[in-house]
Amino acid sequence: MYEGLIEQLAVENRSKIVLLVMDGLGGMQMQNYNGTELELAKKPNLDTLAQSGTCGLLTPVMPGVTTGSGPGHFALFGYDPVRNNVGRGVLSAAGLEFDLTDKDVAARVNFATIDRDGNIVDRRAGRIDTETNQRICELLRRKIKLPKPYKFFLVTEKEHRALLVLRGPNLAGDLDDTDPQQVGVPPLPVKAQSEKSKKAAALFNDFLKQARKALANEPKANMLLLRGFAKHHPYPSMYDLYKLRAVCLANYPMYRGVAKLVGMELYPVVKSFAEQVDALEKNFDKYDFFFMHVKTTDATGEDGNFAAKMKAIEDVDVLIPRITSLQPEVLAITGDHSTPSALRSHSWHPVPLLIWSKNARYDGARNFSEKSCQAGGLGHIYSKDLMGLVLAHARRLKKFGA
Amino acid sequence: MYEGLIEQLAVENRSKIVLLVMDGLGGMQMQNYNGTELELAKKPNLDTLAQSGTCGLLTPVMPGVTTGSGPGHFALFGYDPVRNNVGRGVLSAAGLEFDLTDKDVAARVNFATIDRDGNIVDRRAGRIDTETNQRICELLRRKIKLPKPYKFFLVTEKEHRALLVLRGPNLAGDLDDTDPQQVGVPPLPVKAQSEKSKKAAALFNDFLKQARKALANEPKANMLLLRGFAKHHPYPSMYDLYKLRAVCLANYPMYRGVAKLVGMELYPVVKSFAEQVDALEKNFDKYDFFFMHVKTTDATGEDGNFAAKMKAIEDVDVLIPRITSLQPEVLAITGDHSTPSALRSHSWHPVPLLIWSKNARYDGARNFSEKSCQAGGLGHIYSKDLMGLVLAHARRLKKFGA
Repeated sequence: MYEGLIEQLAVENRSKIVLLVMDGLGGMQMQNYNGTELELAKKPNLDTLAQSGTCGLLTPVMPGVTTGSGPGHFALFGYDPVRNNVGRGVLSAAGLEFDLTDKDVAARVNFATIDRDGNIVDRRAGRIDTETNQRICELLRRKIKLPKPYKFFLVTEKEHRALLVLRGPNLAGDLDDTDPQQVGVPPLPVKAQSEKSKKAAALFNDFLKQARKALANEPKANMLLLRGFAKHHPYPSMYDLYKLRAVCLANYPMYRGVAKLVGMELYPVVKSFAEQVDALEKNFDKYDFFFMHVKTTDATGEDGNFAAKMKAIEDVDVLIPRITSLQPEVLAITGDHSTPSALRSHSWHPVPLLIWSKNARYDGARNFSEKSCQAGGLGHIYSKDLMGLVLAHARRLKKFGA
Repeated sequence: MYEGLIEQLAVENRSKIVLLVMDGLGGMQMQNYNGTELELAKKPNLDTLAQSGTCGLLTPVMPGVTTGSGPGHFALFGYDPVRNNVGRGVLSAAGLEFDLTDKDVAARVNFATIDRDGNIVDRRAGRIDTETNQRICELLRRKIKLPKPYKFFLVTEKEHRALLVLRGPNLAGDLDDTDPQQVGVPPLPVKAQSEKSKKAAALFNDFLKQARKALANEPKANMLLLRGFAKHHPYPSMYDLYKLRAVCLANYPMYRGVAKLVGMELYPVVKSFAEQVDALEKNFDKYDFFFMHVKTTDATGEDGNFAAKMKAIEDVDVLIPRITSLQPEVLAITGDHSTPSALRSHSWHPVPLLIWSKNARYDGARNFSEKSCQAGGLGHIYSKDLMGLVLAHARRLKKFGA
């Protein structure tokens, strides 16, 4: 609420802060389950933390608004999720550690399948494997020529996803997506939203025309859909704002992308949450702030698999003692949004939050659950305000005023 | 908080939303009553809804501020209650379905009694009946002449209340009320707050001078008090903002007025809440959003009649199953403000809120009461944010961001 105040109060000390984001953590009741995923999971370690810590509920954006993971994470890092909403292209670039310049417009690519008439048959090209993606990107890099001085970069992300960056003078990023979000119709042309983005629109359309020709004989990935066109505007880093040397232990490009944009160092990709804990142990002296991320809680919720989401929570729980035994000053555990299995999607329901710290005031919670959190000592706050609380519990904020 | 965000995310679907406003719903303990009106009322149906729904507390404007019904309702419909605060004259006109033009200044009229010296004896003219009001308005319409091209419209509302509209060029509405809010003193003159409202002030004063002469022989209503001068500025409709086809089933002019200003269709006036439920049943297919309104909860609170307010809540409770059996996606039950019988007036205490929807997360409430609401899953939010939550539970909001 008071823009810039936390920044003004932040001081350095030797405390360690661990932020564990369990993606899509919040849930709800579902047929045959008389409680939420978090309530019904067996998680003795998390429950013990709740007993000696303090709980609350986070609203990622505003009441009723279901957020994507991008704004959800920006808010957790203390950046206004609406004013800093960023195109998917820029997130993808950041996640791939592709350094965008001010001459670049980035777009997220989905390879797709079109039929002879040019209508979309599959918006994800049968989820081609990453090797096929790499082969096709290589082919397109060789075949497509743009008028000088413009160039493009096409980078494989994973499966059917890639990053396309157009570089050159006078390019603006206010362009409409080409993905019509349905099958049976052709891709849309790249459309300029203003006079100043007409140059970029023409170049992207030229690129797509050549790409379609070059991919004519591909059985699956014979077209590209572009979305989330965006230019990159630099953000202040978490060091600038909070004097925190922050590191990202997350594995997925999306979350690594947000972390990079807010100036975190990116730890090499590891294979599991257990390996993130290994990395935490090994590098505990090296940083002040550790961003850990669990994807399975969201993925299982999106699948509508209540039991699997419970299991994902339980799998995190067994590793908690390894984190607490490092004795960080603050361990904050929450999600970027809720993903109730009952809804099979992100939702607007506020997200459970637990802050474990010797400086936390006990609030009488017996376990870590939505119900404990709704009556918890931290109340119902905005995700954007979490960083202030975390820094406070780490004694990293000066007193305000005399 | 993020102006325009809900509007940007709103989509149409076939869901039905019922908003039941129990005016002045919130209460407090009082001598001989060990609880609030809502806690002590026997309301098995509302309690059942609380068990399968989710609760919270609404702050109509900001902590400590007691709101009138106008801003209280604007906030419930998602309109900023302070920036959109509207003169009582405009509300009265809307409630009477009088279409104001941009050449009009409207004022709320209270007929009053003055003595020979011109001092006010009764600010409501002994609450004259509506027929007397109509006769007097007719008399004044015949006797009073304004300089061309100006004209006036005087419309009976109810009992001692009427609407006065002045129409013509160069009229501004920033004028002081003539009601001194006390007896034993004369009415105040209409005073311009700026240069541009001097013309309107002169004309209203001319009107009042002629009116006093014309009413000299009336035993009770021998003067008019004017307040809430205002010009009408159009609002975006609830369809513009939320893509909701909304209908107002409320009976009282005031609430119908707000509903009309936000673009609701006004259903013909019915005589009771039961008849509002009839209308809901008959028109359930025809609209997306139904605004129902119960006045007795406020009127009994204003009378300081705790038992009668309990009874008013119980009378609503018995009709609840008729509403839920229609299976709306969302039934939201709240008030525009609190009216504790103990205070005999509107108050600043936050207002109980219940959202019943299959997409609500159970919050463990056992009944619908202030105490359940204060610990409920929706937390303590502003009335202005209710519409976002309601739309979310009706699945009428897209996801924000990637």
